[in-house]
Amino acid sequence: MLTKTHLLTPGPTPLPERVRLVMARDMVHHRTPAFASLMREVQAGLQVLFDTDQVILPLASSGTGAMAAAVCSLFQPGEKVLVVEGGKFGERWTKICRVHGVVPVILSVPWGQAVSPAAVAEALDRDADISGVLIQHAETSTGVQHPLEAVATVTRTRPVLLVADGVSAVSITPCPMNRWGIDCLLTGSQKGLMLPPGLALISLSPRAWSKAETIPVRNFYFDLLKERSFCLRGESAFTLPVGLVAGLAESLRMFGEIGLPAIHRKQWALTMLVRAGVSALGLDLFVREHFAWGVTSILLPGGIDSGPLLARAAERYGVVMAAGQDAYKERMIRIGHMGWLDYSDLLAGLHALAGSFIFCGGYLGAGNYLEQALDAYWTALDEGPPAA
Amino acid sequence: MLTKTHLLTPGPTPLPERVRLVMARDMVHHRTPAFASLMREVQAGLQVLFDTDQVILPLASSGTGAMAAAVCSLFQPGEKVLVVEGGKFGERWTKICRVHGVVPVILSVPWGQAVSPAAVAEALDRDADISGVLIQHAETSTGVQHPLEAVATVTRTRPVLLVADGVSAVSITPCPMNRWGIDCLLTGSQKGLMLPPGLALISLSPRAWSKAETIPVRNFYFDLLKERSFCLRGESAFTLPVGLVAGLAESLRMFGEIGLPAIHRKQWALTMLVRAGVSALGLDLFVREHFAWGVTSILLPGGIDSGPLLARAAERYGVVMAAGQDAYKERMIRIGHMGWLDYSDLLAGLHALAGSFIFCGGYLGAGNYLEQALDAYWTALDEGPPAA
Repeated sequence: MLTKTHLLTPGPTPLPERVRLVMARDMVHHRTPAFASLMREVQAGLQVLFDTDQVILPLASSGTGAMAAAVCSLFQPGEKVLVVEGGKFGERWTKICRVHGVVPVILSVPWGQAVSPAAVAEALDRDADISGVLIQHAETSTGVQHPLEAVATVTRTRPVLLVADGVSAVSITPCPMNRWGIDCLLTGSQKGLMLPPGLALISLSPRAWSKAETIPVRNFYFDLLKERSFCLRGESAFTLPVGLVAGLAESLRMFGEIGLPAIHRKQWALTMLVRAGVSALGLDLFVREHFAWGVTSILLPGGIDSGPLLARAAERYGVVMAAGQDAYKERMIRIGHMGWLDYSDLLAGLHALAGSFIFCGGYLGAGNYLEQALDAYWTALDEGPPAA
Repeated sequence: MLTKTHLLTPGPTPLPERVRLVMARDMVHHRTPAFASLMREVQAGLQVLFDTDQVILPLASSGTGAMAAAVCSLFQPGEKVLVVEGGKFGERWTKICRVHGVVPVILSVPWGQAVSPAAVAEALDRDADISGVLIQHAETSTGVQHPLEAVATVTRTRPVLLVADGVSAVSITPCPMNRWGIDCLLTGSQKGLMLPPGLALISLSPRAWSKAETIPVRNFYFDLLKERSFCLRGESAFTLPVGLVAGLAESLRMFGEIGLPAIHRKQWALTMLVRAGVSALGLDLFVREHFAWGVTSILLPGGIDSGPLLARAAERYGVVMAAGQDAYKERMIRIGHMGWLDYSDLLAGLHALAGSFIFCGGYLGAGNYLEQALDAYWTALDEGPPAA
């Protein structure tokens, strides 16, 4: 009761009241004209977000389900794909490939760094059997944003499909399918789309569809060809989370009202706010360049553990942040800044970070870290992100 | 505005306001002590509903996802299973098996009839290689309820796993795992559980777990062993629909307050209400015996098509019912009576059926069909279902 809750995790994210109230309405049936009309509205909004004229298929699953759908729908058993592995979700591509018979050729990138497009080109040139590149646009586990546009310039002139996990990227940072030449883009509902988890979205380019049409079905639940035939008439193969689809229609209306460029600019400015505040506090930003626009990772100095720091931040300041993952679980804090939040939530976040850090025995020199953060925010909002 | 909407489809079903308002709350993160505590509460409630002391795994998927999870987790490629195929969802078992390499031995049952447990025993005795029986408890496409308890007496003394799709059965009609000896029971959120679609639940018996431990993973997203290890610490392998889990906790609280036997008795009485009303109208009940307690199917006479009848019912009376499926699409109406509804919704449903039938050119003799339906309801509520 002393504080509000500020959910600054890299998904789930806070939800707008408009979206929550739409989702609180009673059910509609998913095989009715009313639902088909909702699906058509959602398709139109998503086509702007994804920059495609193809269908965007909704799946009742987390983002991982859509990753498995992409692997099984686009590649045969025994086919080789290049996996950019620079974090937990890059590793997830590898695991999915192995379970479903696709052969991953791993392009390993140290956690915290982005892949070099030249390294992708070299790997493809070295092995002509590689028919796909699997990558994260934003690697949620590290806060890195891989240079997807440059990677697409490598794949689009080759017979190689570019499959991008856009879970922490779609509607947060530009990732236009058509303009860049992305062959498969997928995301989950619980990040930039300002919805609860439970709905995944996936879209294929025309050349990816041509390839998919040649692949025998080997994953009954995730069959994109079947889903496409249903989607084209406003349905889905299996029952969709109809509440989430209704919520998605509302969040897409909000995107339509303000426009995607303004959202991207806001995300960029929030990122600048967090980075300036963390730097002013004298803490270590884990990603120096190629950082994501929806999550910022901070490396803790020796002796300060993420567990007690996060517990203190939640209890005393009402701020819920995330630890690192795997080897970085204890040594990293991740501040999510996507979904329905603004600069004020991040001021609370920086304050909670500073206070909890000191509480855990750390030393911080900075005085006006919040003002420095706000200066960076307003400047970034005025100037916008650098031209690519 | 002239009528309220009465959603009488066999899923999704109407939702209690209590549940909708809980789901309208803002997000919590799924890897926090608060969520783990919610998961523990949900486990306890589900164990009563499923009658098991094993974990009940939540999956971010529709019920079909849980069906695929069961097939891939319990049977190797090349293994034989007996599939009871008496409707669209029985056929779905077969399709899932074929895609995932399991060999279905089909026990075909005419639509509208229940399987004979003796036929299951004969099929198993004929082929000692069959290691599982896949069945629906309630076949949503026809309104049949297969005699699951009797089938379990056949499987539980054999080295054969009984896998039951309880999507239209769990919390609607008794299907106690332990007491009957069901090896795998699964359901979806959008039926008896009074939630939107998007969450599936699945539980295994100890002997099913022993079998599952021997099966190599071949479906990355639906890996029940991995899910169990996460569930035991209040988490899940992949992001869950946290809003639905919060809603599930609330609906389980409602079940706890009234008790499962009272809910089953209500479902039985609602079924008697619909059947008496339909009979009083002189319409054909598709299922004579072994009928489901959550959906009633009605065969239309020649010349009356489900499409215009359902459209009229929705427009004039605010009542949304479902057509038949596949070969019965035009010839059948299905009235759902599960989830958050009571006798009054079904009076509207019967009235809409009668009025729309006449509107479409049909002839009905009955006068007091609503009173006859109510008599059947109150008698059934007093007397309860017949002892098995």
